[in-house]
Amino acid sequence: MFYIIGLGLSDEKDITIRGLEAIKSSTRVYLEAYTSILMINQRRLEEFYQKQLILADRDMVETQSDEILKDADKEDVSLLVVGDPFGATTHTDIILRARALNIPTRVVHNASIMNAVGACGLQLYNFGQTVSLVFFTDTWKPDSFYDRIKENAKLGMHTLVLLDIKVKEQSEENLARGRKIYEPPRYMSIHTAVSQLLEIEASRNEGILSPTDTLAVALSRVGGGCDNERIVAGTLQELRDHPSTAFGEPLHSLVIIGKRLHHLEVDYAETYAIKKDSWRDVASRVYGCALD
Amino acid sequence: MFYIIGLGLSDEKDITIRGLEAIKSSTRVYLEAYTSILMINQRRLEEFYQKQLILADRDMVETQSDEILKDADKEDVSLLVVGDPFGATTHTDIILRARALNIPTRVVHNASIMNAVGACGLQLYNFGQTVSLVFFTDTWKPDSFYDRIKENAKLGMHTLVLLDIKVKEQSEENLARGRKIYEPPRYMSIHTAVSQLLEIEASRNEGILSPTDTLAVALSRVGGGCDNERIVAGTLQELRDHPSTAFGEPLHSLVIIGKRLHHLEVDYAETYAIKKDSWRDVASRVYGCALD
Repeated sequence: MFYIIGLGLSDEKDITIRGLEAIKSSTRVYLEAYTSILMINQRRLEEFYQKQLILADRDMVETQSDEILKDADKEDVSLLVVGDPFGATTHTDIILRARALNIPTRVVHNASIMNAVGACGLQLYNFGQTVSLVFFTDTWKPDSFYDRIKENAKLGMHTLVLLDIKVKEQSEENLARGRKIYEPPRYMSIHTAVSQLLEIEASRNEGILSPTDTLAVALSRVGGGCDNERIVAGTLQELRDHPSTAFGEPLHSLVIIGKRLHHLEVDYAETYAIKKDSWRDVASRVYGCALD
Repeated sequence: MFYIIGLGLSDEKDITIRGLEAIKSSTRVYLEAYTSILMINQRRLEEFYQKQLILADRDMVETQSDEILKDADKEDVSLLVVGDPFGATTHTDIILRARALNIPTRVVHNASIMNAVGACGLQLYNFGQTVSLVFFTDTWKPDSFYDRIKENAKLGMHTLVLLDIKVKEQSEENLARGRKIYEPPRYMSIHTAVSQLLEIEASRNEGILSPTDTLAVALSRVGGGCDNERIVAGTLQELRDHPSTAFGEPLHSLVIIGKRLHHLEVDYAETYAIKKDSWRDVASRVYGCALD
């Protein structure tokens, strides 16, 4: 059996009993590289599972899946991934490959940012499509996310914005010289995300996002309810001016709040607001929420 | 500490290690009634946790939360819920109440249908807002879900449709006579859901849903990857004509597929299709997917 096991969002204790049993029964256990970078180090997981882990980078999962799947028709093999196997990063390719090889597969689900985002008090019902925001370069500033946020905004819906991660990047020089030397991993910060959003608003100028009149929520490490969870709410400008340390460790996500905002959502998320007065003022004045 | 703990979607083994530790440390553990009805019986959970559970119906969670929260500032108390605490049924009220009483709270997340729906191979990125479908009566056929599906459809997005559950219902006679006798729980079947959808299409007649040209996926018990998971894909008519036993045990959910359907989504979900030829034909002819 080939298992793909979601580890949840926070630390080693977010795995399910079913997932832990699958690991114990497996002869080989792969750990997707993102997971070890984002959550906890490999050694800590190995100690917790009492099992050695094989690090598998995204490239290996995508292009060398046969190696991972080897003998999985005869014995149990597990692949551990951050969040849920069908969350922000999907793992359908390797499952399709397993099916083609007649290897039985099981997916062990867990929380992912796509549902744990509810922790900020915004109703999952009120979310539209999710978008990804990639690191801009001087010459490459893809802005299709703006159209998606606009589509959601026109319907009054919230937008979950997933922020870019760069792992195993090569510098231009190393790439040109064919040297397999990789840069340290980079995660987009809330500051960078907000700056990029406002940069595109400035160039497109369609009035979808406003520094002072658009409310947003920044999230990090939700999922375990443990001490490193961070949720911060405010206008885009407040988030941009807030100390970066306050947003906690990566991976970060950002929610752009839509006009269907309900007063109960305002009340619940107020506890996370940088400035409670401003939070309520914008919710009432711009979003039209009837607050006490 | 007051814990709200998501149990995932399938059975007792979907709880996380963190959730299990919280249960063990708690002096009182409440089980939301939905959860025991939907997943597994109370006794089986009690045996697994080695702990007695107190059944809490929705009414108790909503209106008598102070009883649940009693002494949670001095000792650990847990409330167990199906899926994720912020999934389809949210638990923000009781957390707000706990905050007002200065009781520290922690949420232990888990998979919910809002992310586990990815198991059918449809990309979570391509989903718009989620809708709920309630049981129609002769005189009450609320159809606002139709507008939501239309909004999603116009953007080409998939719609997750959550199907109604009725627990603790009284017959009209028992209600009139003030007798607290409750009907057995009812869960909306896929057949009923599809019939209601097509009934509203017939009356609204806006061409959003078609028996032969709208593809959909029915899901049940996703989340554990265990034997009772059921995923069935087809046109609305094929789903309506399919034997009801094929859809597995409640709770059921339904996805209405949007036009942004990608050929990889078609490939992946084909394994669940009632009629593979028809699945590919509609995906190609109506949805415009470029298939091999």
